[in-house]
Amino acid sequence: MSGAPFPLAIDPAARPARSVPADLAARLRAALPEGVVLTEEADRTAYLVEERSLYRGEAPIVLRPRSTEEVATAVRLCTEAGVAIVPQGGNTGLVGGTVSAAHEVLLSLGRMNRIEEVDPLNFTMTVQSGCVLADIQSAAEAADRLFPLSLGAQGSCQIGGNLASNAGGINVLRYGNARELTLGLEVVLADGRVWNGLRALHKDNTGYALKHLFIGSEGTLGIITRAVLKLFPRLTDRQVALCALNDPSDALTLLSMARGRAGEAVTAFELISSFALEIVERHTGGQTPFAGRHPLYALVELAGSDRDGTLRPAMESLLESAFEAGVVADAVIAESLDQAGNLWRLREGIPETQKKAGGSIKHDISVPVSRVPDFLRRAGEAVETAMPGVRICAFGHLGDGNIHYNLTQPEGMEKTAFLAQWERMNAVVHDIVAGLSGSISAEHGIGLLKAGELLRYKDPVEMDLMRRLRDALDPAHLLNPGKMMGRGGG
Amino acid sequence: MSGAPFPLAIDPAARPARSVPADLAARLRAALPEGVVLTEEADRTAYLVEERSLYRGEAPIVLRPRSTEEVATAVRLCTEAGVAIVPQGGNTGLVGGTVSAAHEVLLSLGRMNRIEEVDPLNFTMTVQSGCVLADIQSAAEAADRLFPLSLGAQGSCQIGGNLASNAGGINVLRYGNARELTLGLEVVLADGRVWNGLRALHKDNTGYALKHLFIGSEGTLGIITRAVLKLFPRLTDRQVALCALNDPSDALTLLSMARGRAGEAVTAFELISSFALEIVERHTGGQTPFAGRHPLYALVELAGSDRDGTLRPAMESLLESAFEAGVVADAVIAESLDQAGNLWRLREGIPETQKKAGGSIKHDISVPVSRVPDFLRRAGEAVETAMPGVRICAFGHLGDGNIHYNLTQPEGMEKTAFLAQWERMNAVVHDIVAGLSGSISAEHGIGLLKAGELLRYKDPVEMDLMRRLRDALDPAHLLNPGKMMGRGGG
Repeated sequence: MSGAPFPLAIDPAARPARSVPADLAARLRAALPEGVVLTEEADRTAYLVEERSLYRGEAPIVLRPRSTEEVATAVRLCTEAGVAIVPQGGNTGLVGGTVSAAHEVLLSLGRMNRIEEVDPLNFTMTVQSGCVLADIQSAAEAADRLFPLSLGAQGSCQIGGNLASNAGGINVLRYGNARELTLGLEVVLADGRVWNGLRALHKDNTGYALKHLFIGSEGTLGIITRAVLKLFPRLTDRQVALCALNDPSDALTLLSMARGRAGEAVTAFELISSFALEIVERHTGGQTPFAGRHPLYALVELAGSDRDGTLRPAMESLLESAFEAGVVADAVIAESLDQAGNLWRLREGIPETQKKAGGSIKHDISVPVSRVPDFLRRAGEAVETAMPGVRICAFGHLGDGNIHYNLTQPEGMEKTAFLAQWERMNAVVHDIVAGLSGSISAEHGIGLLKAGELLRYKDPVEMDLMRRLRDALDPAHLLNPGKMMGRGGG
Repeated sequence: MSGAPFPLAIDPAARPARSVPADLAARLRAALPEGVVLTEEADRTAYLVEERSLYRGEAPIVLRPRSTEEVATAVRLCTEAGVAIVPQGGNTGLVGGTVSAAHEVLLSLGRMNRIEEVDPLNFTMTVQSGCVLADIQSAAEAADRLFPLSLGAQGSCQIGGNLASNAGGINVLRYGNARELTLGLEVVLADGRVWNGLRALHKDNTGYALKHLFIGSEGTLGIITRAVLKLFPRLTDRQVALCALNDPSDALTLLSMARGRAGEAVTAFELISSFALEIVERHTGGQTPFAGRHPLYALVELAGSDRDGTLRPAMESLLESAFEAGVVADAVIAESLDQAGNLWRLREGIPETQKKAGGSIKHDISVPVSRVPDFLRRAGEAVETAMPGVRICAFGHLGDGNIHYNLTQPEGMEKTAFLAQWERMNAVVHDIVAGLSGSISAEHGIGLLKAGELLRYKDPVEMDLMRRLRDALDPAHLLNPGKMMGRGGG
């Protein structure tokens, strides 16, 4: 997979065979201000490459509108020309959802980066969709509020992309996905009309939940231009512990004990496999606080608002009880913010250090939380049978039943030979997930990467409903075609 | 309005003019078990009347299926005959959403009342849609879990209706509406096919969020037959206070202070107007704990899991600070569960005692929380101008910006004369709501009662999107026609 450049580039046959009309750029330039329409290769490159070099985009025109009106104008002109549009946020997605073909126009929302309003008393914030997630977090903090969406790419991903892909991250257990954090949306529709659903209401039962249709639709039903986000009280106390465990079922018991004692204060509950912790330690010089090795680890965070002093004893008493019950083999509580940061870095360092340990075949699965131990056992046996010596770099959000079940190449295997097994190993893991009524994409979405897998596992009735909705809102299939539903869904 | 019986009965012209074919009952009987098909008037009556006698249903056939398969069979046969179906749960809704016409078939889900599974480790429960809400709450409690949906009708409303109408209630501030409490759904579609979206996953990004389309669609897109509900840690400590306030803006400040100190422990924050408390006191013999009258009151509840002893000092310190800041004029904290129950009864008694105080013209509005004081001021002035002497019985969920802004007839006015002003007074209040970017139905839905108002206030682009979705999923408009979108939307 790393041998050939851009091995997953779009197959033109998978799209309606079109080309961009020669005069489209000129028409767009005539209707839009200077600097919005880019056609020079040097200007476009940043929007066509992605960090992993798994895909390479080819759009001959890149648009950078600065307002909803400019987005609407761009969409209308492209639609009139029958040319498909690929919307793009921070270009940090992991499933090729913003990769463009040579007959498509790429529309970047990055210049729509204004935080328009923070309303602390309504616990809301109104933002343009090109705002970088970290900037939104900071603006909330400046108003003594929390915007809890938090994920690895937060320094460059944009909220529009977070919403289009219904991003998850480390705080979902307590606060939900991007979907649950959204009160209102403004969306440019496939025909260039604007749906103004930019409501800052915590309750509204006047009609269908249109916002939820656009959120998570990966740009195939409309282009999100603005959003009203939900804010929360700031977390002023934070207790972090790393626990060594003997068995996945102990992790479940610990999670249940933690939620029973601390309720929503359980902000994160992350699983780390033994191998995952080992490579972080080896490649970052980070030190795990335990003498020996353990089969797996859980990173537990309790956090709360202004009730100082109650979380530390809660964490201590939780771990004491867990020791006594034989649920935890060893544990350490961070004594300072620095130490808490170090523990978190062990978890957050995994995706980067994994690259240093060799090629990875990745899965972003979920199953009911109660079935995670079952999944780990079955998948462990199956992948070892399918590829003896493969190393399991599993980590992720146990509290949500969401495991990044990544496979690292066996010692001594060639990386290219290993990566050539991507689809075969996907099938091994995903079949087990399907057998446990799980999801083959818990938080990363479908994009191009998993469109085939979606067709394979999804109930035909559900695919039919999705196609009907797509046809209802974008009959010509000009919004991000080929993503999510693949060829059949346009 | 109370003069004529069933004053809001369905205008037959508002529906496709059809009648139920003479042989449909026989065909249904042939395909469904004994006891499912009711045609005798005595058997049907319970499904055609509603407690308030505002509407009277007329369906000549009432179906009482006991399984998803029986619902699917019924829908298929009705669809083949071109006959519309009105789904019904506990028949407790407030907007006429389950009222049937003489050319329609009523389908009651009440016999599908099995709790199929409780999974405490996954924090989920799988239920049939005819389960009564209170039974679901009890089953959760028996598994040491909480199902937090809580509302006045919980002893008879059914979860299917709660989901179809996206029910709210008193705990939305902390836990969200019915929508946020749902992980998966099973739905019988307009053509009799079954969509199996009954997933027990806390995270799943594989396609459009179909469940959110069905939730809150008032039975117009499909009939919900089963659901996977989200459970939470039980609340084992509960502190309730009633606060007397001088001004709505003080209520906002108090809410913000409470959330800043206690975070999600703020489980309810209810507003009670002076007149609302007065009638409860007068008609129930309940005693308010304050010597004099105050312009308004806030009922505040903090609740938490197993961290005993921390909430009481948190409530005390909150109220002390609020006193010092001049935010609260007087306050009382319940010293026992009994006292807490008494305080809650003051709030919960309002809807019943309101009837004793005379006719009511009701509104279920929301605005951004920060604009509630503005709304109360503007609406107060406007309704007094429109009808001098009208008494404002406002109460509700300040934490969500959701106020039940009910108007009680002026002293000495005739009830019928007062109720004849329903639409005029609706327009006065709803225009102010629209001016504040609010909602004319925060939690009760649209049904028949507000279909006209929806058309009046909703953006035409949004109505168009809703009609497209309806056409995509129920092209013949045979599922609960005339509800929500009125005549035009079928």
